[in-house]
Amino acid sequence: MELVFLGTGAGMPSKERNVTAIALQLNAERGSFWLFDCGEGTQHQIMHSSVKLGKLEKIFITHLHGDHLYGLPGLLTSRSYQGGDTPLTLIGPPGVRAFLETALQVSQAHLEYELIIEELDVDEQGQVKGDGRIFEDDHFVVEAALLEHRIESYGYRICEKDKPGRLLTEKLEAEGLKPGPLYARFKKEASIALENGRILQSADYLSEPIPGRIVAILGDTRLCEGSKRLARNADVLVHEATFAKAEADLAHRYYHATSDQAARLAVECGAGCLIMTHFSSRYKGDEIEQLVEEAREHLTHAYAARDHWTYVIPRKIDPKNV
Amino acid sequence: MELVFLGTGAGMPSKERNVTAIALQLNAERGSFWLFDCGEGTQHQIMHSSVKLGKLEKIFITHLHGDHLYGLPGLLTSRSYQGGDTPLTLIGPPGVRAFLETALQVSQAHLEYELIIEELDVDEQGQVKGDGRIFEDDHFVVEAALLEHRIESYGYRICEKDKPGRLLTEKLEAEGLKPGPLYARFKKEASIALENGRILQSADYLSEPIPGRIVAILGDTRLCEGSKRLARNADVLVHEATFAKAEADLAHRYYHATSDQAARLAVECGAGCLIMTHFSSRYKGDEIEQLVEEAREHLTHAYAARDHWTYVIPRKIDPKNV
Repeated sequence: MELVFLGTGAGMPSKERNVTAIALQLNAERGSFWLFDCGEGTQHQIMHSSVKLGKLEKIFITHLHGDHLYGLPGLLTSRSYQGGDTPLTLIGPPGVRAFLETALQVSQAHLEYELIIEELDVDEQGQVKGDGRIFEDDHFVVEAALLEHRIESYGYRICEKDKPGRLLTEKLEAEGLKPGPLYARFKKEASIALENGRILQSADYLSEPIPGRIVAILGDTRLCEGSKRLARNADVLVHEATFAKAEADLAHRYYHATSDQAARLAVECGAGCLIMTHFSSRYKGDEIEQLVEEAREHLTHAYAARDHWTYVIPRKIDPKNV
Repeated sequence: MELVFLGTGAGMPSKERNVTAIALQLNAERGSFWLFDCGEGTQHQIMHSSVKLGKLEKIFITHLHGDHLYGLPGLLTSRSYQGGDTPLTLIGPPGVRAFLETALQVSQAHLEYELIIEELDVDEQGQVKGDGRIFEDDHFVVEAALLEHRIESYGYRICEKDKPGRLLTEKLEAEGLKPGPLYARFKKEASIALENGRILQSADYLSEPIPGRIVAILGDTRLCEGSKRLARNADVLVHEATFAKAEADLAHRYYHATSDQAARLAVECGAGCLIMTHFSSRYKGDEIEQLVEEAREHLTHAYAARDHWTYVIPRKIDPKNV
């Protein structure tokens, strides 16, 4: 599980940073990657990265501002060109379907794979209906929540499910059980009935479960309740920091956040690590270090993403030990 | 007058070539530039070029395939961001308005300048109505014509109007006329009435007019009648050469042209120079030289464009002297 930052700038591309896109590589977990936002030029950035477009499985759009959206038609048609033929799911705010379908129709683009568009099911205030869960399978749960931006903007919380612990082979051998197909069942079944009629509780023969990791990737936003809900106990919180601490007024006016605010949120929610992104182009080169310093006044594990930076997500860190 | 090739590849971006966009710099002529096609990433290419986005005056779209179109919303909004506040005219096939308006509406983009969208006025067969003239002012005439592609594709012929010749000051002085505001009128007025009642014909006091240059920029196409009409006596013909000579069947099937076909067209039409572009990504690095050699069997002044290559358009060359 790793994050590849494909675009880390705000508003429009600069020579240093492209507009927003973040790949969550799930090679080991599911042989695919998920993309969060798709600003113009995302397919170009992918071309210069370790990410394989054909392995794209899901796209989550946080909001419909152009710097998070305009790369979508080109990326989807190029995936087709490159022989990508597995289904692809696109999740985003209402409006993403109209945008994409018009672009594909006008340009007479025919995708060689199934594209499933799932607009978020929201109420009149833009709140995600129900408990916010928008995806679940055996390995992951994804939740979405409304943030606070000039247009409806959403964050996504990706929860990896816990995995069974290590098989305690010494204990099994002490029971007289030999290695073989039986062993594999302990990780899949709650209890095992032996031929002699004994019933073993699988948990007794496994070490502690390996806790799943939590990644919160938030769209453009001010500090808000939605952010807190998504960021609680996250191993990694990816949060915008369009502005430095001194520009809090500007940030508020434009519905954005500062480095200081992002870091305070991370601490309040017990996040293990904060990665800031979506920087205003006013911060050039090493000037971004100022924002990192401001965040590190609150937590040690604060980083400023840059284009093509990869962050390998470690297994759960207890926030008390950070 | 110079051409700046911002993207010279076909279909999708590669590491060597971005998708199509060509800037016609008219700095000396009108302090602006015109853009022909706008594939994804065109604004990024502009950022790394001598072209200034704020000076963009007109955009001509040849056809609505994504590799010629998808960069439009991002480029237009970035122009606004960068303080571009002069009106901008977008000309393209029917459908370009729906594409752009949907993209701008969904993303709630507000341009800080007037955007004038002029869809080509075409009949049911896609032919441009009337004599094909779509723009004319004191300095330029632009014609459009239908080409032959999988979807309606158009070419544009940009004709610079002839300029008055050099003022023959010796001749004026011989008439007893002194340098001053009077001299300037000879380039603007057909005849000048002197205070003594004499009428001078301006043409008698000017050298031969300086012939305007003709640039033909064609969209994706097979060889066709429309191409010939636009390319006649062009100083520069910009023509696609998606494939090499040996792939003529493939080119025909996909409604494209070969290097050989482009060069034969250039010769037939008396074009002074051929610039090939829109190369299939199958031709990597120096392999493109093969296409240049194939074209040069027909005419000397044949070139393969590459990204960021600039071609300064010389004053008229007599095709007989090529």
